[in-house]
Amino acid sequence: MTTTTPRLTPADTEQGDPRLDADVRRIDVQHLARVLLGHYPELRLGARRLMADERFHQIPGLTLAEHRERVLAQLRLLAAEGDVHRSFPVRFGGAEDHGGFLARFEELTHADPSLQIKSGVQFGLFASAIYHLGTERNHEEFLRDALTLAVPGAFAMTETGHGSDVASIATTATYDPETQEFVVHTPFRAARKDYLGNAALHGTAAVVFARLITAPAGQPRVDHGVHALYVPVRDPQTLELLPGVGSEDDGLKGGLNGIDNGRLWFDHVRVPRTNLLSRYGDVAPDGTYSSPVASPGRRFFTMLGTLVQGRVSLDGAAVTASRLALTIAITYANQRRQFAGGDGDEVVLMDYAEHQRRLLPLLAETYASGFAHEDLLAAFDDVFSGRNDTPDTREDLETLAAALKPTSTWHALRTLQTCREACGGAGFLAENRLTGLRADLDVYATFEGDNTVLLQLVGKRLLTDYAKGFKHLDAVKVARLVAERASDAARFRTPLHRALQTISDVGDPRRSAGQLRETETQRALLVDRVETMVAEIAQALRPAQKADPAAAAAIFNSQQHALVEAARAHAELVQWESFTAALARVEDPGTQQVLTWVRDLFGLTVIERHLAWYLVNGRLSAGRARTVTSYIDRLVARLRPHAQDLVDAFGFEQAHLRAPIASGAEQARQDEARAYHRAQRASGDAPIPEKHTR
Amino acid sequence: MTTTTPRLTPADTEQGDPRLDADVRRIDVQHLARVLLGHYPELRLGARRLMADERFHQIPGLTLAEHRERVLAQLRLLAAEGDVHRSFPVRFGGAEDHGGFLARFEELTHADPSLQIKSGVQFGLFASAIYHLGTERNHEEFLRDALTLAVPGAFAMTETGHGSDVASIATTATYDPETQEFVVHTPFRAARKDYLGNAALHGTAAVVFARLITAPAGQPRVDHGVHALYVPVRDPQTLELLPGVGSEDDGLKGGLNGIDNGRLWFDHVRVPRTNLLSRYGDVAPDGTYSSPVASPGRRFFTMLGTLVQGRVSLDGAAVTASRLALTIAITYANQRRQFAGGDGDEVVLMDYAEHQRRLLPLLAETYASGFAHEDLLAAFDDVFSGRNDTPDTREDLETLAAALKPTSTWHALRTLQTCREACGGAGFLAENRLTGLRADLDVYATFEGDNTVLLQLVGKRLLTDYAKGFKHLDAVKVARLVAERASDAARFRTPLHRALQTISDVGDPRRSAGQLRETETQRALLVDRVETMVAEIAQALRPAQKADPAAAAAIFNSQQHALVEAARAHAELVQWESFTAALARVEDPGTQQVLTWVRDLFGLTVIERHLAWYLVNGRLSAGRARTVTSYIDRLVARLRPHAQDLVDAFGFEQAHLRAPIASGAEQARQDEARAYHRAQRASGDAPIPEKHTR
Repeated sequence: MTTTTPRLTPADTEQGDPRLDADVRRIDVQHLARVLLGHYPELRLGARRLMADERFHQIPGLTLAEHRERVLAQLRLLAAEGDVHRSFPVRFGGAEDHGGFLARFEELTHADPSLQIKSGVQFGLFASAIYHLGTERNHEEFLRDALTLAVPGAFAMTETGHGSDVASIATTATYDPETQEFVVHTPFRAARKDYLGNAALHGTAAVVFARLITAPAGQPRVDHGVHALYVPVRDPQTLELLPGVGSEDDGLKGGLNGIDNGRLWFDHVRVPRTNLLSRYGDVAPDGTYSSPVASPGRRFFTMLGTLVQGRVSLDGAAVTASRLALTIAITYANQRRQFAGGDGDEVVLMDYAEHQRRLLPLLAETYASGFAHEDLLAAFDDVFSGRNDTPDTREDLETLAAALKPTSTWHALRTLQTCREACGGAGFLAENRLTGLRADLDVYATFEGDNTVLLQLVGKRLLTDYAKGFKHLDAVKVARLVAERASDAARFRTPLHRALQTISDVGDPRRSAGQLRETETQRALLVDRVETMVAEIAQALRPAQKADPAAAAAIFNSQQHALVEAARAHAELVQWESFTAALARVEDPGTQQVLTWVRDLFGLTVIERHLAWYLVNGRLSAGRARTVTSYIDRLVARLRPHAQDLVDAFGFEQAHLRAPIASGAEQARQDEARAYHRAQRASGDAPIPEKHTR
Repeated sequence: MTTTTPRLTPADTEQGDPRLDADVRRIDVQHLARVLLGHYPELRLGARRLMADERFHQIPGLTLAEHRERVLAQLRLLAAEGDVHRSFPVRFGGAEDHGGFLARFEELTHADPSLQIKSGVQFGLFASAIYHLGTERNHEEFLRDALTLAVPGAFAMTETGHGSDVASIATTATYDPETQEFVVHTPFRAARKDYLGNAALHGTAAVVFARLITAPAGQPRVDHGVHALYVPVRDPQTLELLPGVGSEDDGLKGGLNGIDNGRLWFDHVRVPRTNLLSRYGDVAPDGTYSSPVASPGRRFFTMLGTLVQGRVSLDGAAVTASRLALTIAITYANQRRQFAGGDGDEVVLMDYAEHQRRLLPLLAETYASGFAHEDLLAAFDDVFSGRNDTPDTREDLETLAAALKPTSTWHALRTLQTCREACGGAGFLAENRLTGLRADLDVYATFEGDNTVLLQLVGKRLLTDYAKGFKHLDAVKVARLVAERASDAARFRTPLHRALQTISDVGDPRRSAGQLRETETQRALLVDRVETMVAEIAQALRPAQKADPAAAAAIFNSQQHALVEAARAHAELVQWESFTAALARVEDPGTQQVLTWVRDLFGLTVIERHLAWYLVNGRLSAGRARTVTSYIDRLVARLRPHAQDLVDAFGFEQAHLRAPIASGAEQARQDEARAYHRAQRASGDAPIPEKHTR
C-alpha cells in the first residue's frame, strides 16, 4: 500500500477511544479496493500499471510548446501500447468493447489530464465521430489512419459564437452537383470553429459540423441542418494549412496545456461528396438528400447522442481526480501535526473536528460519485453494445450522463480546492499536484456540455416525464410516478408516505438519529424532494401553455433556477441509490458496516445541504433537523479512524500519487523533530522557557 | 468607460419592462465610482494610472525563470517610481502614511498578483519587520537598503513544520557572550524556513524568526521565545549562499510564479548581537535579556501584531480581484447571446435567470466586501498612525482583519471560478485572465494566516467577550452585550427583540417581503444569529472548565466547527454593517436606491445561506422563509438592468482588464453575425429549413 501511516489494528479498536462508539468495525482494504474497481477490474489495473510508467507522467512547468510535444509523443506511445481501440470494430484492431474503452480511458487522468483529453479528442471524438456518424465506406476510408494517429484530427463542432447551442452553428457545407463536392464555408467570425484540440498545430484533418445545404436540379436550396464532414486541413508532411483553411492558436489556457486547442475556419473549401459522414443523412450525386431518420429534430439528436460517451468518461475522470486529491490530503493529515493538544503533544491534523468536517463529507460524496459512475458506465455499455439499445434506454442514458457529469465535475473542483487548502502551503506547491489537477479539471465543468445547461436538460426531462404521467393518470398516481422516475426507475419501490410520516413524528433525539440512519428514511427524504420540486415547477409553468411565446419564455425563465436545483436533487438521489445498491456488493461484514456509515454520511450531508427546504416544506421538524447535524458530527467522528483505509482502498500507488507530502516524507520529518525534542528533554540540556523562570 | 454596451438610458426606464418594477432608478456611475474609491481616491487613481503601464503587466506563459526575473525588474521599477515607501519614516523617503501605503499596494493586483506579493514580501514584510520590530539603530543600519532594494530580503518566519503555529517554530538563535554574536541554527528538517519569497534566488538577507536563547554568566540557559534577527544569506555581488546557509527552491507553484519562494536553513550561522531587531527584546553584551513587555505571551503577540498589515492588504487585493472578475463576466454576459428566446432572437446571457442568480449575489457580496475593506483600512490607519492605538483598538483591528481576510479571499476564489464558468470556453483561455487570477489568488486563502485558523481566532474572541460580559452582568444584559460586540461595536443600537418579534409574525407574503427589505429587520436577523451561536457554544464549553486538559481539549474540539461558523456569521454581519453605513455616503438618490437593493440582496443572500438555522431556531416561520427566496428572485431581476453600471463603477480601464472578451470584441462578433443573417433574410437567398419543406 501507499502510505506509512499504520492502519487501524484490532488493538486500536479495543482502546476505548471515546470517538469510536462501541461498534467499531474494520475495513478489509483489499476487498473494498476490488469492489471499487467495478465492472472492469483487469482493464483498470492494466491501465494503471501502464500509467505508472513515467513516460506518461505530466512534468509540471514545461513550456506550452514542450508540453504539447510531450503529450503528442505520449499519445503515439498510447496508440501503440495502450489498448485504446477497444471500442472500435475488430477489423480495425478493436474489440467493440465500449464500456471497457472508457474504463481504461478514465485511468489516464492520474498520468496527465492533458493526455486523457488529447486521447479523448483523437479516439473518443474524432475517430468515434467517423465510426458512429459514418458508413462502412467512411470507415474504410478514414478510420484506420485516425486510429493509428497517421492522421491526428480535430472535432470541429463548437464555434466561437455557439457552444452549448450546437443546433445554431453557422458553418455551411453547400453541395455542388457540378463537381460532386461540398463547399465548406465560414460566413463570419463567430462561425469559426473554436477550442478544438489538435486544431492549433497537430491536426491534419477535422470532422467538421456544418449546416448541409443542397438543391437538386430546379428545386430550392434546403438547409438540412447540422451534419458532419471529413475535411483535410493540413498537409500531412509539411503541416502547412491547406488552401482556404485558416487556423489560430487558442494559446495558453487555465489548464490542459498539453493540448493544442485552436480555431479553424474555411473559405469555400471543397471536399468530395463522399467525405460526408453519411450514416444519418446522405446526398446523392444529383444533390438529392436522404436520411433514415425522417424528422430533422430527431436526426440532430441522434447524431449528437454519440457525444454521450465524452460525458460518461468525464464523470469517471472527475471521480479519479477526487480520489487522488483525498488520498493525498488525508494521508498528509494523518501525518502532519500542528498546535499542542490537551496532553501537550502536537495534534495530528486529521484529529481536528473541523478538518474532519471539511474532508470526510467530500470523501463520502466521492464514494457516491464512484458508485454512480460505475452504474452509468454499465448503462452506457448496455446501450452502445446493442444489448439494450432502444430510444428509451438511449434517452435514459443521456439524462443520467447529463445529471452525473455536472455533479461529479463540480464535486471534483470543490474537493481539489478543499484538499489543497487542507495541505496549506505544501498544497500550493506544484510538486504536490493538487493545484495542477484543479487547473486541468477546471474546464470539465463547461466542456462536453456546460454543467448548467446539462442540468437544465435533466430538469426538462423530469418535467416531461411528469407531464407524460399527468396526461394518463390521476393525481395520486402522478406522485408515485414522478418518484419512480426521479429515483432512476426500477430500483426504487418504497412505501413513501409511511416512511415520511414516521420521520415527521416528534420523538427523542436518539430515536430520531436512529431513523435518519435507516435506508428507507433517507430514500424517502431524497425522493420526496425531487418529486415535490418537479411538481411545483410543473404547476408554476402551467400558465405558459396559454401564453404567447415571449410570455411563455419569461415564465420558463422564472423557473430556470428551480429547474437546475431540481436536477441537482435528482442527481444526488441517483448517487445515493447507486451507493445503496453497491452496499449489497460488499461481502465483508466489517467493510459493509463502515461503508454503510459512509453512505449515511453522504445521505445526511445532502439532506443537511437542503435542510431549509425540508423545514420550509414541513418534511422535517425543527427538532428533527437539529438531529441531522448532530448525527453528521457523530458519523464524522466514527469514520475518522477509517479515513486512511477508505482512501487506501482507491488503490493508488506512489507512481500514481507522485505527491511528496503523501509519500511518508512528512511522517519522517515529524519523527525526526519529535526524536530531537525527546533527546533534548532526556539530556537535561533543554533551555528553560522564560515563563518558567518567574 | 470600458465597455461598448449601452448603459440604461432614461428612455429604457420608461419602456415598462415587466422585470423592472415601477420604481426604476438610475445609477450615477461617476458618483458611485468616487464613493468606491474610499478614503484614498487620489492614491488609488495614481496607482491605477501607473499600473496601466504595460511594463507592470503579467505576461501569461512565461517560464518560471522568466516570470521571476520580470517581476524582480518590475519591483525595481516600482521602488523607483511607485511611491511604495509611504508607510515608512520621512527620513527614509516615506510619509508615515500606513493606510495610503496599503491602498496603493492593493492596486498592484490587476497588474500582476505576483508583483503585489513580491512587493509585499520586500516592503510589507521584510522592510516592515525591520521598521516595526527594530530600534532606530536597526533602522539606520538595515532599513535604507531594504527600501531601495539594494538588499532584497526574505521574511523567514514559517518553517516546513510550523505554519499557523508560529509560537512552536524550532530555529534557535543562541547568544554567545564570548564573541557577542547570535548563533542561528536549524536543528532538524521540519525547522527549515519554507515558502519564503526571495529565498530561492534573489534574497541577500532575511529577517529570521528564531527562539532567542541566552544565559548570562553562571545562570541557566533560558528560551525567551520567538524573536527576529537580521541575517545576511547571500553574497550581494555573486548571490552565492554565505557559509552555513542552505537554500532550496520551492519550485513551481499553483500560481504567483513571479515569486522565487524557497527554503532557508542555518548551520550555526553567526551574526553580531546588534542584528537582533531589538525593539521588544534585547540582549546586553553579557547575555542579559531585557524587554519592555514583561509577559512572554504578550510580547509574542505584540511582535506578531505587526503582521496584521499583510492581512489587511490581502483583504483589499481579494476585493480588487473579485471586482475584476465580475467586470469581465458581466460585460461579456451583456454582449454574448446563446439560444433563441421567445421572439426567435438569441438571448443575451445576462437575461437568463440562472445567469443572474449566479452572478448578481456575488456582485452584491463584492460590494459588501469592498465597503468592509475600506472600514478595515480606516481602523488599520487609526491604530498604526497612533491616532487611536490602544491595546483594545489593536485587538479589535486584529479580530476585524482575521474575520474579513478569510471571508473576502474565499469569496474571491468563488467569484473568479463562477465568472470563469459563466464565460464558458472563452473563460478558460489565459488571455481572458480569470484562470490566472484564480490560480494566483488561491494561496491567499492559506497564507498570512490560514483562513480556518483565523476564523477560530475570531470565534475565540467572540467567546472571550461573551465570557467577560458574563462575569459582571446579569443574564439579560449579557444578550445585549454579545449583540453589541458581535455587530462591531458602536454602530449597532437597535431594539433587537421588537424587530425579531415583528418578523416572526405571520402575515401575507407581500408585507413579509416588505419587512425583509427593512434595514432593522436584516440587522436583527444577522445580529441574533451571531449572538445565539456564541451563547450556545459558550454553554457547550462550560463543562470544559472543570475537566482535565485532555477532556477539555476534546470538548473544545467538539465545538470547533460551530466556532468557525459563528466567526463566519460575525464576518457577514460586519460586511453588512459596513455596506449599510456606506449607503449614507451616497448622495445621488437614484444611486442610493439601487445600492440599497444591492445591500438588500447581500443581506438576504446571507440569510438564505443560513435559512435552515433561522428555521430550526424559530427565527423565521416557514412561510416567511419562502419569502426570502422569492424576494431574492425579485431583487435579482430588478438589479439586472443595472448590472453593467454596477461593474463599470469599479472604474477599471481596458489597461486594467486586458480581457479580450470584455473589450467589445464579442459585441462586434455578435453584430457581424446578426447583420449577416439579416442580409440573407432580406436577399431572399437564405436556404429553406428542411422542416419548412413538408
